[in-house]
Amino acid sequence: MKNLTSLERKVLDSIDGEGLLDGILQLVAIESVGGAETPAQQWVAELMGKIGLKVECWDLDFDALAEHPGHSTEIDRSSGVGVVGQIGKGSKEDGLIYNGHVDVVPAGHIERWSSPPFEPQVREGKIYGRGAVDMKAGLCSAIFAAKAIKDAGVILSTPLMIESVIGEEDGGIGTLAAIVRGYKARGALVMEPTGLAVVTTGAGCQNFRIRVAGKAAHGALRGEGVSAIEKSFLILSALDSLEKKRNEGGHPSIPGDLPFPICVGKITGGEWASSVSEGVLLEGRYGIRPGEELMTAREEFEDVLERTALDDDWLSIHKPEIEWWGGRFEAASVDPHVGIAATVRESHGTVTETEPIVTGVPYGSDMGLLVNHGGTPAVLYGPGNVRDAHRPDEFVPIEEVLIATSTLALTAMRFCGVE
Amino acid sequence: MKNLTSLERKVLDSIDGEGLLDGILQLVAIESVGGAETPAQQWVAELMGKIGLKVECWDLDFDALAEHPGHSTEIDRSSGVGVVGQIGKGSKEDGLIYNGHVDVVPAGHIERWSSPPFEPQVREGKIYGRGAVDMKAGLCSAIFAAKAIKDAGVILSTPLMIESVIGEEDGGIGTLAAIVRGYKARGALVMEPTGLAVVTTGAGCQNFRIRVAGKAAHGALRGEGVSAIEKSFLILSALDSLEKKRNEGGHPSIPGDLPFPICVGKITGGEWASSVSEGVLLEGRYGIRPGEELMTAREEFEDVLERTALDDDWLSIHKPEIEWWGGRFEAASVDPHVGIAATVRESHGTVTETEPIVTGVPYGSDMGLLVNHGGTPAVLYGPGNVRDAHRPDEFVPIEEVLIATSTLALTAMRFCGVE
Repeated sequence: MKNLTSLERKVLDSIDGEGLLDGILQLVAIESVGGAETPAQQWVAELMGKIGLKVECWDLDFDALAEHPGHSTEIDRSSGVGVVGQIGKGSKEDGLIYNGHVDVVPAGHIERWSSPPFEPQVREGKIYGRGAVDMKAGLCSAIFAAKAIKDAGVILSTPLMIESVIGEEDGGIGTLAAIVRGYKARGALVMEPTGLAVVTTGAGCQNFRIRVAGKAAHGALRGEGVSAIEKSFLILSALDSLEKKRNEGGHPSIPGDLPFPICVGKITGGEWASSVSEGVLLEGRYGIRPGEELMTAREEFEDVLERTALDDDWLSIHKPEIEWWGGRFEAASVDPHVGIAATVRESHGTVTETEPIVTGVPYGSDMGLLVNHGGTPAVLYGPGNVRDAHRPDEFVPIEEVLIATSTLALTAMRFCGVE
Repeated sequence: MKNLTSLERKVLDSIDGEGLLDGILQLVAIESVGGAETPAQQWVAELMGKIGLKVECWDLDFDALAEHPGHSTEIDRSSGVGVVGQIGKGSKEDGLIYNGHVDVVPAGHIERWSSPPFEPQVREGKIYGRGAVDMKAGLCSAIFAAKAIKDAGVILSTPLMIESVIGEEDGGIGTLAAIVRGYKARGALVMEPTGLAVVTTGAGCQNFRIRVAGKAAHGALRGEGVSAIEKSFLILSALDSLEKKRNEGGHPSIPGDLPFPICVGKITGGEWASSVSEGVLLEGRYGIRPGEELMTAREEFEDVLERTALDDDWLSIHKPEIEWWGGRFEAASVDPHVGIAATVRESHGTVTETEPIVTGVPYGSDMGLLVNHGGTPAVLYGPGNVRDAHRPDEFVPIEEVLIATSTLALTAMRFCGVE
């Protein structure tokens, strides 16, 4: 590694790799599926305290949060805890936020896992387990970056605040709670698995439900009914055209030809094999462009379905019902050349001696809340591949975790300044 | 009524209308949903015994029946009873079978009923309740036709056998059991609700399941997955074309332009709104032509899906899986000018002084088993409209029940002969 100050070198030399690995294994072993995050949050708060961070914990006020324009959730929680650990001097708004979530998606079909999802294992340089890559390794990287700074006796001139949040997977209630609590800063970094790319643009998304009505009849007399399944295909076809239109020409910051996908992930309809289905429920996610007003995007979607319905005798009278439901992630974009983005790029370059990829991603994250509601420019940067998340045998490569930890330590020193 | 012999008049005058109505109400009150038919069968056997029929009851041997080529069932029964009540002299094969089922389909959404489905009510000349029209009224008509013959002191020269069967709705295991038990005759009449039309042709049907495979991916990266929902629409479209082809020109005996519908009644696919669905299950029913070999019909269906799969990069490797599942009803057709068909037409004409409609229906019934496996020419004839079956507020008009009872009494006398 070149271009390191002696203090920086001292901090990097202080990284407790063994403690980091052990921490990830312990945290992955806590089954913190969305809605059941409190034990994981308590574990994080305790670890932060042991390391010497100033820790604030508070109970989330879900009723108050529900009034916030950035509010979005799918899981009905009765309790939840916010945890922020802090080092450094000065006031929050001059500081840096590292944001990581402890909630994980369900393990899914257990039999598809090579080892139990909540009994993490290290195999061939990778940590396996639900939440390993999304994103407990990233969160631990941030905590152990702070530990290294602390262990090296370095004092940051402005605060580094590590937010351990809940509810990211279902819309970001934990990050919203931290914003409402007053955690706003000059820059933020969310440790989502970017494969150590610096992500400065994240598309948004909005979940939807569409209810399509039919008319029941015996299957033998199906001409007397109207199949909601058949009518659903008109809707799917219309959404397909809308997706094409909205993705024309792609997006300069997001690779691929489908930066804003419309994905109908679930379909349920009919009660009997031999009856004409009188109802179909379509559930999906709708990709939102950075800079696009959510309401404008919704209107475009609603207009397309309205026009599709008007073209059909049955649907024009029995209009499909749209429900904007559950998880919503706002799109966001920051200038890759200044602020936190520039510092992370530089620090990653120092650690790896290569330029990081700077890119955009088609998925939503807590970045949208930080930028749009926290007034804090934010990037994504973290170890592991997002494609290994939300699936069996989720894993994170340990080498990337170590690089991320070094990058996060340097970034904090360079962004916050040292005494 | 004209053209009645004095014996016939005596029998018709002996019809116990009050007992009939009371019997229907009692039988509808027994919740004999498929799989739970025994209390209803016991009630029928007791009624038949009281009336003076010679009653045979036996426990169904499901293992043995499962080996029969006509076997078809959806419900896993541990026990079931066969009931046949008989009057008249001579041997079975010269006689007449009246066949009625006691099993009913589930009540469905209770809140859509004006009165509780298993607390039958008489309103404006109609009996309301689950099973009223399909087909407890028809079964009681047959029993009370036999009672009238008995009460009038008339002795039939050949036997009238009233089969009270289970499992019609899920494939006809009860009628199959009666056939295996030896109940074969010169003619049979199934009291399905035909609105007092004489049905001499019934299409068949075969339930199917189709499993369509996709490839999971995060909804935001949907281009990396393959949507089983999208692929399902290729299948549905292929089935649509197959249906058109198979219904070209209709059928001379079955009214309407869709005598052999293919109806996909149920679709289930995907687990998450924001994931690409990796599997879809389609469930439906496939209309079979009279005279068509079931295996030939299946092959035609399988060929169409095979060709559809070969036209698609993904499906050609990940072939849709077809399962021929559950309920199967064989098609059947009898000559409307001779035998039981001719006698019912004549008797209905005598009772109503109008010619009955002679027609075919697009749905399956126990007629297929009686004709194809029992070697017994069979027709459908019964009170009420099939469109009022399998839905809330199922009902049967009492006037049609009384006409059916008279027609069944006359038919038995004329078909079996009297001493």
